Amino acid sequence: MPDSTDLLSLTHLHTALDLAERAIGLSDPNPRVGCVLTAPDGRVIGQGHTQAAGGPHAEVMALRDAAQHGEPTAGSTAWVTLEPCSHHGRTPPCCDALIAAGCARGVALMRDPNPLVAGQGLARLRAAGLTVLALDEAPDDEARALLARAHDLNIGFFARMTRGRPWLRLKLASSMDGRSALPDGQSQWITGPEARHDGHGWRRRASALVTGIGTVLADDPTFTVRGWPCERPPLRVVLDRHLRTPPTHRIAQIGKADPATPGTQVYAHAATLADSAGRERQMRLEQQGVSVLAWPGTQAHDPASAARLDDLAESWSELGWNEVHIEAGSRLAGAFWQAGLIDEVLHYLAPSYLGPGQPVLNLPDLPALPALPLAWRVAQALPLGQDTLLRLRRV
Amino acid sequence: MPDSTDLLSLTHLHTALDLAERAIGLSDPNPRVGCVLTAPDGRVIGQGHTQAAGGPHAEVMALRDAAQHGEPTAGSTAWVTLEPCSHHGRTPPCCDALIAAGCARGVALMRDPNPLVAGQGLARLRAAGLTVLALDEAPDDEARALLARAHDLNIGFFARMTRGRPWLRLKLASSMDGRSALPDGQSQWITGPEARHDGHGWRRRASALVTGIGTVLADDPTFTVRGWPCERPPLRVVLDRHLRTPPTHRIAQIGKADPATPGTQVYAHAATLADSAGRERQMRLEQQGVSVLAWPGTQAHDPASAARLDDLAESWSELGWNEVHIEAGSRLAGAFWQAGLIDEVLHYLAPSYLGPGQPVLNLPDLPALPALPLAWRVAQALPLGQDTLLRLRRV
Repeated sequence: MPDSTDLLSLTHLHTALDLAERAIGLSDPNPRVGCVLTAPDGRVIGQGHTQAAGGPHAEVMALRDAAQHGEPTAGSTAWVTLEPCSHHGRTPPCCDALIAAGCARGVALMRDPNPLVAGQGLARLRAAGLTVLALDEAPDDEARALLARAHDLNIGFFARMTRGRPWLRLKLASSMDGRSALPDGQSQWITGPEARHDGHGWRRRASALVTGIGTVLADDPTFTVRGWPCERPPLRVVLDRHLRTPPTHRIAQIGKADPATPGTQVYAHAATLADSAGRERQMRLEQQGVSVLAWPGTQAHDPASAARLDDLAESWSELGWNEVHIEAGSRLAGAFWQAGLIDEVLHYLAPSYLGPGQPVLNLPDLPALPALPLAWRVAQALPLGQDTLLRLRRV
Repeated sequence: MPDSTDLLSLTHLHTALDLAERAIGLSDPNPRVGCVLTAPDGRVIGQGHTQAAGGPHAEVMALRDAAQHGEPTAGSTAWVTLEPCSHHGRTPPCCDALIAAGCARGVALMRDPNPLVAGQGLARLRAAGLTVLALDEAPDDEARALLARAHDLNIGFFARMTRGRPWLRLKLASSMDGRSALPDGQSQWITGPEARHDGHGWRRRASALVTGIGTVLADDPTFTVRGWPCERPPLRVVLDRHLRTPPTHRIAQIGKADPATPGTQVYAHAATLADSAGRERQMRLEQQGVSVLAWPGTQAHDPASAARLDDLAESWSELGWNEVHIEAGSRLAGAFWQAGLIDEVLHYLAPSYLGPGQPVLNLPDLPALPALPLAWRVAQALPLGQDTLLRLRRV
């Protein structure tokens, strides 16, 4: 029987995190979780990660894996990246599965950060007689690095659970002097292929890709994930209060072209949808497989005002969106920024100076420089071919 | 006697490069060179680096160091970061000193990159019977890393020698959206103390700090090197065609305040100096210890035009300036940029978005996006406290 030193060995939790990362692009809206089962002699006897929503969670996948290999699970240790669930959702609680399988010990990298449920899973295991350890109770340096990775992996799920709003990630690409396009709008090739590939990797993590009608009209984008495996592609969302999205544009056609791909969602102003011309445009879009939604919240304000965007982001949480990836023009990006809704910025910088042109964010005049220290920190500076990604997060 | 394998051992060249770096802020306009002397049994018996101009070079300092410790130099090996000089300048040739000391071998990390003198020092040593090796003839990976460091250490000296123009380094500081100041000119604290300290380290390397009259009038800077040891502070230079530098401003007073500090050099248009009001202003500045110089080159053009800046940069080479550090407003910085004279950009980025304000470079409209791959590459991405330095170099 492993003693507490063995329980603190992090090898299996590293493996479990690797497994959990396989749930990116798959498990949404459920968190990305990995599980390793070890026999009393320390051998790994099962591995698993969260499947698509409605499918088995990581713990059940690992138990099945052990069973398929004829490995008994009685007396085993379950190493999980997140506290096992104790409630009935679309699947039975994972705690019950571990208890039924005769597991002797459970080691969780982190407890559920939702204060309303944190500890209930571990308590249920303890009540069933398992030895239980949560690594986030007294982490050392190596454990802290693992915990940071575990937290980042489900940052959107945790944001939704703890504050009722998804994690909003804004993607920007500009020259060194902050230009996203020349005065005439040319912008397609500001950054190189490595930066664009990295950007698609971040798209893949998201529950939804959000853009504005300006970008749709200017670039006719598809907003798909290219160059990365992605079983559950993110939804495409257009903020388009006057419903000007052309039914012939690629973002409107994409749901019809591929029945496995959900149709684009277009948010329009309720007043637009109340009007007969608007209803006509709505019908034509819906014929292509587009879902047309009324912008939530009060109707009196400018749709890009902070209050409206806040309502919108909260409604996305109710839809089960964890990470929302915003790629928009300087007006909409600037509106999200000003509303204080952006949690993280992916800023891809090309090593060039373009001079006059469109700013990366459309912001109002600042009366004074921000006080130091700033509200943002650089979480990562990553060379990507010719370009550099600076990833910013709120302090 | 060491065989060729010993000669290729890079330990002593690493040490010699460490010594050479001590000549930063000291040896200008001479190159920064380090020298290690080893006895036939491999012991280090002497070390030295280039002193202030007119003083001994690295090889002579290392020979003196050995003599002071009573170490015989006959049969020794000299490890130098740059091919020893073979010509009489303000000091006798270092080759002769090594030969006279009875050195048996000379190992140079790199040959003099000036094609007119490259190899002459090594040939002179060979002719005197020394075994001679230059590491840049067939470098492996470790040697290439050393060579890159050696090249960067004297990049301005090499630029001056091989192309007749100093290495021009432009320092920029901006928000992530490329703003160096708010619309009202506030800019003092865009970047934090770590970035400013790093900037002073780059100032210290330079033969001269160049700014424009706009910056002098707006900020009343001292343009000194703070927080770093610097025996030979860089000259201060103001480009000020109408000679508007106030004699009461700190940059005009600094030479008078400290007799060890050379007075600021102010470049004015020849027409300004030909006029009686201009001559009056010149006299008042000269009373403070300021040197007033006529802008070189043809007089017909806009002083900020490419041709005029090119003339100016070439004249700096004749003055023996190796690295020139430019900290200026967006107009002058933009003019140097447009003239194609900037070799390296130090761009300090604060993690903030400021919206409307002064651009980091004042550039004209671009008719089209630059072709890929770009003419610039990111040589370094360095976190500095809250900020990030992206160091760009021409490809």
